[in-house]
Amino acid sequence: MPGTVTILGAGAMGSALATPLSAAGWEVHLWGTWLDDHLLAACQAGEPHPRTGVRLAAGTRLYASDQLDEAFTGADLTVVAIASQGVLDVVRRALPNISRTRALLLTSKGFAPNDEGHVQLLPDALRDLAAEEGVELPPIVAVGGPCKANEVAAGRWTAAIFGCRDESVAEEMAKAVATPAYRAEVTSDEAGVEICAPMKNVYAIALGLADGLGERHGEPHHDLKAATFAQAVRELVVLTHMVGGDPVTATGLAGAGDLEVTGLSGRNKVYGARIGRGEPADRALAEMAAAEQTVEGVPAARLARSLVDQRNPGAWPDLPLLSAILDILDGHSDPAQRVADAVLPRG
Amino acid sequence: MPGTVTILGAGAMGSALATPLSAAGWEVHLWGTWLDDHLLAACQAGEPHPRTGVRLAAGTRLYASDQLDEAFTGADLTVVAIASQGVLDVVRRALPNISRTRALLLTSKGFAPNDEGHVQLLPDALRDLAAEEGVELPPIVAVGGPCKANEVAAGRWTAAIFGCRDESVAEEMAKAVATPAYRAEVTSDEAGVEICAPMKNVYAIALGLADGLGERHGEPHHDLKAATFAQAVRELVVLTHMVGGDPVTATGLAGAGDLEVTGLSGRNKVYGARIGRGEPADRALAEMAAAEQTVEGVPAARLARSLVDQRNPGAWPDLPLLSAILDILDGHSDPAQRVADAVLPRG
Repeated sequence: MPGTVTILGAGAMGSALATPLSAAGWEVHLWGTWLDDHLLAACQAGEPHPRTGVRLAAGTRLYASDQLDEAFTGADLTVVAIASQGVLDVVRRALPNISRTRALLLTSKGFAPNDEGHVQLLPDALRDLAAEEGVELPPIVAVGGPCKANEVAAGRWTAAIFGCRDESVAEEMAKAVATPAYRAEVTSDEAGVEICAPMKNVYAIALGLADGLGERHGEPHHDLKAATFAQAVRELVVLTHMVGGDPVTATGLAGAGDLEVTGLSGRNKVYGARIGRGEPADRALAEMAAAEQTVEGVPAARLARSLVDQRNPGAWPDLPLLSAILDILDGHSDPAQRVADAVLPRG
Repeated sequence: MPGTVTILGAGAMGSALATPLSAAGWEVHLWGTWLDDHLLAACQAGEPHPRTGVRLAAGTRLYASDQLDEAFTGADLTVVAIASQGVLDVVRRALPNISRTRALLLTSKGFAPNDEGHVQLLPDALRDLAAEEGVELPPIVAVGGPCKANEVAAGRWTAAIFGCRDESVAEEMAKAVATPAYRAEVTSDEAGVEICAPMKNVYAIALGLADGLGERHGEPHHDLKAATFAQAVRELVVLTHMVGGDPVTATGLAGAGDLEVTGLSGRNKVYGARIGRGEPADRALAEMAAAEQTVEGVPAARLARSLVDQRNPGAWPDLPLLSAILDILDGHSDPAQRVADAVLPRG
């Protein structure tokens, strides 16, 4: 390695990864879904990518949605960076091509409910899908950690974490994509990396709520935000343990690290801040949806509820903040008090 | 309990604690050192406390520096909230009075180098001092967690952590001071709570540096800040382990929680931001000192260096961020690169 890498998904993170991959010596093929055509058009016109505000790395080859096979010409490595609702569909179509590459780096994050309503982590869903189709997937490398797409695209310092059941593959990949600015640490804890990514979006709603309270009352609520942060990390440990992962993943880059960056900015935090300022949760969500601002933490919270119900309902007493967030999404009348009750010690 | 509590130190945290203690039913005696006379004068004139901007809880009795014995009239509980450089001196003078109270709640934080230059945690130094004087101290309860004095004073939601070797005393005290807004969780890990408090100030300098870089370049460096946060938590675990504490303390309220709030605001973060914006470390420190802005993380970093050298120099490879901060304080020519090298995975 390096060689040729095919990135599936030309949204913010897919396009951003062209920067370190290109800098690390890879020939980058960037394939956009049918939803990405306007993004590719902007890039082809030499404009900055509309989602990151940064120009694509020089030399990146672009492939439109009807050029999926061409995008894999000579591919040695696959990166899957599709929004979570589309990832299974795209991977199904690309299975034969993906199977011929060395590894599948997965930046898509989320839960995948199967037909029976059983909630899975994405790598498990991908492996099941491949088995159904009789195709063998290469090793999956879950990519996590505090990586804002616009900063990755701009080549600013970023620490990722690569989780692969075969840790030697994670190591090989971390070496193969390393640049002075983009580095990955490795772990064999695929499940821990996977569960932290959607859950940090859920908990960022509560962090945003503390910010919104501060705006509403004209005085910061930093103590509440910090207590919420500490409780969120504690619950990431519980959830990581529940899926068979390592608590260290939850207190490291994938958990606490990613939660820190998600609590600084982003839509989940913004949504929580609107609730903290006093807007009803459903109205704020509808307004953000109307402005095409997806709040990933909302569906993730509800899928997490199913996951806990299915895997270990006895863990609910250790997940008071997740319970509070679910109550707030369902219209609880006093969100701030509900979060405080969840994160303050019993006393 | 409750009964009468004597708070030694009328600065920000000492005066702030009058709010929850008073709300929990305590009669509060607030004693100021010779450096606090102007603070007490303002409070006596009915003005907000100059350090918190909040009026003292109603009913708080004030005692000037020459009224140390009077301040202990009927005292059942002692709170020590003296700036770390003065704490040993004040405690020595108050030892007989303190010894007659049920417990010593310690909010003062820092390292105490003894005459031989051996760096101790404050509770150990206090116990040694009492032993020298032939006085038996009541149980020490280390008070940590994300508690900004102005928020505690204003009665905003705050989660503290009380660490006492005898956990039942920590529990008794947590119950005795609990209000709807101020709550404490308990641990027997006194040492862990103690080491996290000064060290979060050290690491907040590096968090501020990422903020300053963002201001300097007009674009946020959130990925670097988050990677720095994750590495700081990892090093808090190493340091907590070094003093015989529990890693959970470092990933909970005392460590990650307090680091979160310290990275949001405060002088250590501000100092780091000035370095990140491009000011030489020594000049920025001198200017802040001239403006009476103490940057506690600076002496704490150097005492931490001695502590590690004395207790376990083999741990230095696991403390790259602490090493980087020390280099930066000593004038390293490229602070941003130095932090990035310390917090990015090796790749």
